[in-house]
Amino acid sequence: MFGRIAILGAGAIGLYYGTRLALAGNEVRFLVRGDLEAIRTRGIRVRTGDHVEVLFPAKACADANEIGPVDLVIITLKATANDQLARLLPPLLQPGTVVVTLQNGLGNETLLTPWVEPGRILGGLCFVACMRTAPAEVTCFHTGMITLGEFERPLGEQARAVARLLEGSGVVCRLVENLAEARWRKLVWNVPFNGLSIAAGGVTTDVICADPALTAEVRALMEEIRAAAKALGHDIPAAFAQRQYDVTPPMGPYQPSSLVDHLAGRPVEVEAIWGEALRQASQVGADTPRLALLYALLRSLDQRRRPSGL
Amino acid sequence: MFGRIAILGAGAIGLYYGTRLALAGNEVRFLVRGDLEAIRTRGIRVRTGDHVEVLFPAKACADANEIGPVDLVIITLKATANDQLARLLPPLLQPGTVVVTLQNGLGNETLLTPWVEPGRILGGLCFVACMRTAPAEVTCFHTGMITLGEFERPLGEQARAVARLLEGSGVVCRLVENLAEARWRKLVWNVPFNGLSIAAGGVTTDVICADPALTAEVRALMEEIRAAAKALGHDIPAAFAQRQYDVTPPMGPYQPSSLVDHLAGRPVEVEAIWGEALRQASQVGADTPRLALLYALLRSLDQRRRPSGL
Repeated sequence: MFGRIAILGAGAIGLYYGTRLALAGNEVRFLVRGDLEAIRTRGIRVRTGDHVEVLFPAKACADANEIGPVDLVIITLKATANDQLARLLPPLLQPGTVVVTLQNGLGNETLLTPWVEPGRILGGLCFVACMRTAPAEVTCFHTGMITLGEFERPLGEQARAVARLLEGSGVVCRLVENLAEARWRKLVWNVPFNGLSIAAGGVTTDVICADPALTAEVRALMEEIRAAAKALGHDIPAAFAQRQYDVTPPMGPYQPSSLVDHLAGRPVEVEAIWGEALRQASQVGADTPRLALLYALLRSLDQRRRPSGL
Repeated sequence: MFGRIAILGAGAIGLYYGTRLALAGNEVRFLVRGDLEAIRTRGIRVRTGDHVEVLFPAKACADANEIGPVDLVIITLKATANDQLARLLPPLLQPGTVVVTLQNGLGNETLLTPWVEPGRILGGLCFVACMRTAPAEVTCFHTGMITLGEFERPLGEQARAVARLLEGSGVVCRLVENLAEARWRKLVWNVPFNGLSIAAGGVTTDVICADPALTAEVRALMEEIRAAAKALGHDIPAAFAQRQYDVTPPMGPYQPSSLVDHLAGRPVEVEAIWGEALRQASQVGADTPRLALLYALLRSLDQRRRPSGL
């Protein structure tokens, strides 16, 4: 069903899933910027524990027109680079191209509608711990899974086909009836922990969990997200939030992905995570004062971090 | 009425008011730590515009027992050093000693009650822009005034006597019937601007005022402070908060005093300003979610700042 596949954006997530798909025999093209030469000359290296897999040759281009129309586009760009989509995406499309966004936060599917028929848009949430450890190299600490759903419609054949493709490449998939709810569920952890880890001074999650004032704010932010989700029609049980909290202390000194970006001087996905959550909450009249303050602070911190970090 | 006066804590505020009082002919002793040698050998220098005044000799001690009992103690310690009071204050007291705290935030008067009869406790708010620019040197950019009131009682003869003393030294005083309300009024500006200037990444007030998301948070925090004050019986008009906002943009790139401390690696008065406001608000059931989040963040930032700054 998916003869030609394009991976749009080759950070850790793009390199990892693209390599899985290619090693399983699929025809995969990587649309990349920074790592182009490294990928072309050395291929892509995926480290998982002591195990190293190499994809060579790996087909990478910097220009979407060199790739041309494909059957499946997997978007793994940082949401902060979404302004590049208008240039990068259209050359990859033909009638019937399915587009899956694996990006963080809310609103990434909607952003595709100028170019992609809504019925061809899918979204996925990556529960995976991997890092780009060198050019064209990704190290995977926890292979996790992808939660996959269709955009503003119940589960259908397209999501099942993508799941089969991914499962056939060794990627665990979970299908969800309601993609929007799945995205809001992920925010229950991401909004407090990714946000406070930056705003509280660049702290790992264990520092947050050891600080009673910050812990109380984590729980209050989780409640605001649950209330906003509920106002939007997504019923997230209190027990889900409790579990999201409970899994965190055992993670030890964990750096949420947004903190990793922030400390490296890279832009943080402030709009996709906090900004879009706040806007959707406000539209349905949900009261989210802590989310509003956290968003304003992260936006300001992000604006100030970038120049010094680059 | 006040034969002997002790200034407890000789940062900018202590050096400034102590020098004013001494130059007017009062007998003033400075209880200091860091600047002792500079004060003893060179006296205290107060710069105001092009004008320089020198107090020499200036009587300074590092040990409260060397000063002994006085008639008036003026406390100008940073509230973060309040744990030193048990050691510094008692040797200065005798029956009838009046104690005025000019410290920031809430709760500083209450802290004195283990040693000082409540009826002898006064509080003052300094509206002055001065900085310690060298050892034993203070530069005053705006002489401003002191707002003076009595602790948990209406205005009386003691506040009037202290005001006469200060006015006789060239310090403008304003007497207030309700000291607690005056302190809450000051928080209407200090809670948002001092707090956000640190939490938004070390920004001056003009940056806050130019950022719509941060400006909205300033106004929301001002409303939380008004609501908490109201629940405590202090009616602060909306027009007062509006004026507090309006005076800020013309101040240009101003660094609130807490930001100055934070950037210099000095402890910030987190408990006296945000912590105590939050505790008093919670006690009367006022809902202050933004204050709670800001407090938790500032507490964390302050804990992380200190070691690297010192």
